[in-house]
Amino acid sequence: MEIKKTRLETDSMGEIEVGSSRYWGAQTERSLHYFQIGKDQFPREMIRALGIVKKSSAITNAELGLLEESKKNLILKAADEVIGGLLDDHFPLSVWQTGSGTQTNMNANEVIANRANELAGSALGSKFPIHPNDDVNKGQSSNDVFPTAMHIATAESIQKNLIPNLKLLHSILTNKANQFKGIIKIGRTHLQDATPLTLGQEFSGYAEQLSYSLDRISQVLPSVYRLALGGTAVGTGLNTHSNFPVKVAYAIAQETGIPFITAPNKFEALAANDSLVEVSGALKTIASSLLKIANDIRWLSSGPRSGIGEIRIPENEPGSSIMPGKVNPTQSEALTMVCAQVIGNDVAVTIGGASGNFELNVFKPLIIFNVLNSIRLLADASRSFAIHCVEGIEPNLEKIKTNLENSLMLVTALNPHIGYDKAAKIAKLAYAENLTLKEAGIKLGLLTAEEFDKWVNPKDMI
Amino acid sequence: MEIKKTRLETDSMGEIEVGSSRYWGAQTERSLHYFQIGKDQFPREMIRALGIVKKSSAITNAELGLLEESKKNLILKAADEVIGGLLDDHFPLSVWQTGSGTQTNMNANEVIANRANELAGSALGSKFPIHPNDDVNKGQSSNDVFPTAMHIATAESIQKNLIPNLKLLHSILTNKANQFKGIIKIGRTHLQDATPLTLGQEFSGYAEQLSYSLDRISQVLPSVYRLALGGTAVGTGLNTHSNFPVKVAYAIAQETGIPFITAPNKFEALAANDSLVEVSGALKTIASSLLKIANDIRWLSSGPRSGIGEIRIPENEPGSSIMPGKVNPTQSEALTMVCAQVIGNDVAVTIGGASGNFELNVFKPLIIFNVLNSIRLLADASRSFAIHCVEGIEPNLEKIKTNLENSLMLVTALNPHIGYDKAAKIAKLAYAENLTLKEAGIKLGLLTAEEFDKWVNPKDMI
Amino acid sequence: MEIKKTRLETDSMGEIEVGSSRYWGAQTERSLHYFQIGKDQFPREMIRALGIVKKSSAITNAELGLLEESKKNLILKAADEVIGGLLDDHFPLSVWQTGSGTQTNMNANEVIANRANELAGSALGSKFPIHPNDDVNKGQSSNDVFPTAMHIATAESIQKNLIPNLKLLHSILTNKANQFKGIIKIGRTHLQDATPLTLGQEFSGYAEQLSYSLDRISQVLPSVYRLALGGTAVGTGLNTHSNFPVKVAYAIAQETGIPFITAPNKFEALAANDSLVEVSGALKTIASSLLKIANDIRWLSSGPRSGIGEIRIPENEPGSSIMPGKVNPTQSEALTMVCAQVIGNDVAVTIGGASGNFELNVFKPLIIFNVLNSIRLLADASRSFAIHCVEGIEPNLEKIKTNLENSLMLVTALNPHIGYDKAAKIAKLAYAENLTLKEAGIKLGLLTAEEFDKWVNPKDMI
Amino acid sequence: MEIKKTRLETDSMGEIEVGSSRYWGAQTERSLHYFQIGKDQFPREMIRALGIVKKSSAITNAELGLLEESKKNLILKAADEVIGGLLDDHFPLSVWQTGSGTQTNMNANEVIANRANELAGSALGSKFPIHPNDDVNKGQSSNDVFPTAMHIATAESIQKNLIPNLKLLHSILTNKANQFKGIIKIGRTHLQDATPLTLGQEFSGYAEQLSYSLDRISQVLPSVYRLALGGTAVGTGLNTHSNFPVKVAYAIAQETGIPFITAPNKFEALAANDSLVEVSGALKTIASSLLKIANDIRWLSSGPRSGIGEIRIPENEPGSSIMPGKVNPTQSEALTMVCAQVIGNDVAVTIGGASGNFELNVFKPLIIFNVLNSIRLLADASRSFAIHCVEGIEPNLEKIKTNLENSLMLVTALNPHIGYDKAAKIAKLAYAENLTLKEAGIKLGLLTAEEFDKWVNPKDMI
Repeated sequence: MEIKKTRLETDSMGEIEVGSSRYWGAQTERSLHYFQIGKDQFPREMIRALGIVKKSSAITNAELGLLEESKKNLILKAADEVIGGLLDDHFPLSVWQTGSGTQTNMNANEVIANRANELAGSALGSKFPIHPNDDVNKGQSSNDVFPTAMHIATAESIQKNLIPNLKLLHSILTNKANQFKGIIKIGRTHLQDATPLTLGQEFSGYAEQLSYSLDRISQVLPSVYRLALGGTAVGTGLNTHSNFPVKVAYAIAQETGIPFITAPNKFEALAANDSLVEVSGALKTIASSLLKIANDIRWLSSGPRSGIGEIRIPENEPGSSIMPGKVNPTQSEALTMVCAQVIGNDVAVTIGGASGNFELNVFKPLIIFNVLNSIRLLADASRSFAIHCVEGIEPNLEKIKTNLENSLMLVTALNPHIGYDKAAKIAKLAYAENLTLKEAGIKLGLLTAEEFDKWVNPKDMI
Repeated sequence: MEIKKTRLETDSMGEIEVGSSRYWGAQTERSLHYFQIGKDQFPREMIRALGIVKKSSAITNAELGLLEESKKNLILKAADEVIGGLLDDHFPLSVWQTGSGTQTNMNANEVIANRANELAGSALGSKFPIHPNDDVNKGQSSNDVFPTAMHIATAESIQKNLIPNLKLLHSILTNKANQFKGIIKIGRTHLQDATPLTLGQEFSGYAEQLSYSLDRISQVLPSVYRLALGGTAVGTGLNTHSNFPVKVAYAIAQETGIPFITAPNKFEALAANDSLVEVSGALKTIASSLLKIANDIRWLSSGPRSGIGEIRIPENEPGSSIMPGKVNPTQSEALTMVCAQVIGNDVAVTIGGASGNFELNVFKPLIIFNVLNSIRLLADASRSFAIHCVEGIEPNLEKIKTNLENSLMLVTALNPHIGYDKAAKIAKLAYAENLTLKEAGIKLGLLTAEEFDKWVNPKDMI
Repeated sequence: MEIKKTRLETDSMGEIEVGSSRYWGAQTERSLHYFQIGKDQFPREMIRALGIVKKSSAITNAELGLLEESKKNLILKAADEVIGGLLDDHFPLSVWQTGSGTQTNMNANEVIANRANELAGSALGSKFPIHPNDDVNKGQSSNDVFPTAMHIATAESIQKNLIPNLKLLHSILTNKANQFKGIIKIGRTHLQDATPLTLGQEFSGYAEQLSYSLDRISQVLPSVYRLALGGTAVGTGLNTHSNFPVKVAYAIAQETGIPFITAPNKFEALAANDSLVEVSGALKTIASSLLKIANDIRWLSSGPRSGIGEIRIPENEPGSSIMPGKVNPTQSEALTMVCAQVIGNDVAVTIGGASGNFELNVFKPLIIFNVLNSIRLLADASRSFAIHCVEGIEPNLEKIKTNLENSLMLVTALNPHIGYDKAAKIAKLAYAENLTLKEAGIKLGLLTAEEFDKWVNPKDMI
Repeated sequence: MEIKKTRLETDSMGEIEVGSSRYWGAQTERSLHYFQIGKDQFPREMIRALGIVKKSSAITNAELGLLEESKKNLILKAADEVIGGLLDDHFPLSVWQTGSGTQTNMNANEVIANRANELAGSALGSKFPIHPNDDVNKGQSSNDVFPTAMHIATAESIQKNLIPNLKLLHSILTNKANQFKGIIKIGRTHLQDATPLTLGQEFSGYAEQLSYSLDRISQVLPSVYRLALGGTAVGTGLNTHSNFPVKVAYAIAQETGIPFITAPNKFEALAANDSLVEVSGALKTIASSLLKIANDIRWLSSGPRSGIGEIRIPENEPGSSIMPGKVNPTQSEALTMVCAQVIGNDVAVTIGGASGNFELNVFKPLIIFNVLNSIRLLADASRSFAIHCVEGIEPNLEKIKTNLENSLMLVTALNPHIGYDKAAKIAKLAYAENLTLKEAGIKLGLLTAEEFDKWVNPKDMI
């Protein structure tokens, strides 16, 4: 006897064969066929968020007396598995599908219904006792479910992943700023030697950038807390209970511990995805900021002989097999590439956000794919950079000292003592004959070594 | 006797001829020679901001006992002329110059010194009694002056120009939403006919987008309030009084009525321009949002016969000379082009912001040029769109009614009365034979005209 | 007895444990540890290209007498497995790694060496008889291997995937242009009704866009044919045979059937990745072009009742369960999202391309990841759009006819017969009273029905 | 008696007052009123191009017997003044207007008609003997005139401005590559010291980038040579003579000396502006390329003491007043800012290019404004960078020598003589104790000074 490898699933277009071990149904199967585009799929966070929407909707519908307790309980069990990641293999669809995300919403409805029915001892594809549309999608529409899941996934990713990792980087940079606070070094503007500052001050600037990055991402969260759910197809809330929107937002807030609320205007919430364009703009600002820091770190560690070389970074992998001290700044490289990607992703999100028409924006999968990708990349790369690079940075005190002492900018300290004209003469001679300022001053007979050491004190310049 | 058309000005590189009617000096003149790149110049707002920095610095230096009252008064008179726009012709430099804006800072120093000296009865170029560096630039560096002016110009432009014009557009859209609140029309998702909503609801979504746009731009202002002034060359504040930063920020706040404060970390304030990248991100989000609105408006007014045509927009210029009713949506076109420009500008700003090194970002002229350009374009185009288009929008009631009555989506209202299957039959016949639902229902004998009119009421669907 | 699950691998930093079933070695394992950033990996095309580089290098080194035949044969066997995709599971590294791609080059060296040694009956990790550096990487450096693989993967993807699929879409659009050549319809400019053209002419414009897209992508291929291999670490070709560059390019051309040549200047080939920025620019231009076509298609099929509705697109998945004729333009939606992604990717590539320093650009993984992603997405989405949408487009003749007959623009055809002024009167009455032109003309007594039908013939206007 | 300062002009909407000294007419005046957005106007190149279109159209219409000789001659005289730049003040319109550029086309028609009538002794506003629409715009439509002028302006700007200036930079870089060919220096990859190359080789890479930049821009010109003129309103050529398209393209080619042809498919030529998106992509690739060169130059000249300092760039303006040798790389800074702008402009152009609908793209003013701006900026900045920076670059031979001699990478030259292990020991000691390789080798007793000098010869490594 042969084991059947497929079963029949049905939708309004008729029957279609689905792999017998799969929980998805007809609409998912059709989408697999019609959208063989690239390999991108929605990440875990988005599938989890769909599970949260379905669970919270079932709770709310039951509370409103619109869904029997027994059905609710079945849906909750299946939805909890979706939330927990047990059914990720049953979400096979491409990101590049219908622009409303309808097919992925149906995928969630089908998987939850089939799994719930299985738990109830019913056959896959039976749509009984749980119907994917009538029960799992009850009082909802893809048009409000999908943007709601987008907001949940974004808020959770920012709070659970991005903010902690930016805080980690901030904390390590702050430690370094403190650790380096007594180390005076030459400043650089236009890549040219400038007046001194401490290495700690330099790192305090980076730490401040991270502090503001945290402000920036926190600041956009309230926009993300507004949920579209309850707007149904076009924002009017047709076919849903008038108390559903507020109650379901509350249920989602309970489930996630995040202060989600129902969006005051559902027409905006479906037709525009401006909130996520705003988030992407904040992510891009952070990327732009991290690019500066990562670039500084690699330049400061350049060398070992013929670069700037004022800091040493950890040697995580073999550089040159024979040459010690050649430590490639690979963590900076990974981070800067990630930042470039985030900036590119932001352009894609912006175009998508701008392209809504009438009651619906149909670039939603593009938008959430890029926003979640940018969050993930920034979070992971910040963490990697923090623990595999910044944490291990050590000053190269000898190089810092040599650079500082060689600096012609220190001549400005002589002005009050010997006057501008004589100070300038010293600097010019030092530059022309490649001397230190002290050597040039003594050679010109304008000061003694003792006077130089007393007058030229970089500590007074910071 | 011949009138000399030039005079000699000097800087540390020596003498150079400058047009005798010009207030600028040697460094400006050199920049004119070396940077013949494009035609872009800094706008009025930036020149004004430089005047404010110079005035406030003179006031603060005088308060600190570092500048004689007589000198202060001369500087104030000249700086007030710069602030007021009387000397704009004396700021001729290209945006595409040194990346610190040093040449434009020197331009301001030179113009104010020469004009002050002229007021004092002294010759242009004499540097007496007011010296451009020692007096006008006292306790400052281009590296802190220029980013401070960038923030002043940005904050003023946002508050005086962008916010009022976004509010105007918000207010007119809100009025329209109220005006149109009783007009039921067909909804559209995926560009396909969907369930109905009111025209007022549709416009309420636009108004809400504007409301959030105002939130978004207001939210980034605190970043702009932080001023770099007092950091001097590298952020350490070398050569300026320790009380200068706080006092000068206060003076600037007094002058502008905007709550500027001194930046808590000057290293960040000079080396990064993240605050303006953040502003540009907000501008870009607003542009993305306005694009959606402007596109909807032009699609809704498309026609006159073979488009959607549910609204009429004002006819400001001749469309077709012979064909009445062909009203090109030119205000939408201008606005959408502006939005595309703002999105492009944001990429330029982001690249510039990411490109700082060590103690200084040297993409400052690029950044401020684009930020001010984006603010100006969004403000002007929003105003133009508001008063020349949105204000005059009228519903095309006949077309709205026809579209609504033709809509097959209304069939969903029959479900509770005759059941899903019979309702679907009606819809299919109507589609196949190009009938109204009422005609199809009667033809199929499934309902009477009276029943149809009673059961199918779009008002119950919104 | 316990089976050991790991083995020891070594590199210049010492020993490290690697899963015993894995072919990779110490450097790959270290990279896995240090770069836990996102989930992106290099696609098949890039792994294949690395196999081609290694195979061709072994052939060339053997020809030059630098590699024993027996070693060459072992390397070839293993490299062929890499080329054929048998060892893809052994390339686990993140895209977000060192910017030179060194770790992925070492991954290839390690996998080929271990697999070759296994074939030779030697233990994994033994580095005997085949050493990953001395033999597999012989005469090469990551700095020339990686950009060479980038060019190979790009050229192959364009030729095998993108061009055929763009040709497919071009061909189907051309067929439609021919099929629709007799169907006269109203034109639209500014979204407003304009003078007529045929539906075939409209589609001929799309076909022409595809024809130019093919030109554009073909035009950039010669840049991609230039290979960096032979430049080794900094472009001087240190440690490689002087005949290696030309010979290995020939070997690669033989292997791929693509006319690769050695780059005339290796300094440019390592330090800049301008050729791929150029490719990405062409991809972005194609994306911009396809966006227009996909948008037109969805607008033309909008409706079914209250849109433009001049064409019908295939119904691939359930639209509304009850409303026939609501066919969401999902293929257009997928394609437009893909195009937005390609435009965003291009910004990332451009930033990466601009960020090289001195002898090496270290944004290479970012660049190739995005270029290959854009190629894949455009190819797949064009194919999907072609076969699942364009192929099935049918004109809605009734709607086309109605729109055309309703059009007021046809009045221009009356000018030669009754003069501009009378023609304008007819148009104005028709618009004001919602009449056809014919009705208005007769009502005004300016022409007869017969005259109208004789004079107003849209066929004469196209 | 009072002099009247305005006169009445008329269009189909009625009368409007225009300044009496202005050649423009009613439609221009209305646009001035309705589009008060920003300060951007079309550059000289675009006004000139419109003059060329009008002149060539008049010539062609006369040849086809559609325009009397006397009218033609009047139009030619006025159009030649537009071409020559004498009437630029009479083109006051904002870029941010109707998206078809209709208002600027009408501006050209009105100015030419009024100026021609003035030449004929007729009153401004009389539209006699030359009518702006019937004569100047004869057989044309804004929809084909404007994109034709866009192509003319782009092709002329590229050929007359961009290509010569890129060639200049290419030539100076090539000279430098030759001049520096004997100077051996340390290479750098990952910002880390690497094996040596010559300064000439480094510059040859830059020269090669310019050479390819010239290829890239030349390669896109054929797309620009295709002209839309003859398509009239929607591409069908309604109301123009069937021989007009080919003849007018020939006339334009004659006037400009550029091989323009008529576009084979006018529907594509009006509805898409892909050719200019393609041009913008090439400009962006060049910008990305120049960014790398400009960055290298400023890093190589960093210092004077604590940077890389291997080259000296010209000192064009005062750096620090007291510190000699601090030469800010201001030309690099201007060029890199310009490149960032061009990359941003490209995004704006791409969005505009993607946003066409049906028979017309209505983002044309945005597109041409940015394309011409990018061309101008790249041309000017390349020239400025070439003559004010690259031309004056001199090697800092002492620094180059020190860096090279200090380099630990030279140890690789010892491998064949003393073996890898001993060579590595020398390198490690040199790094640990900050010695030269020679010192370390002698200290370890592994070689003599004479042996070192004989074996370690960087010339053998390039």
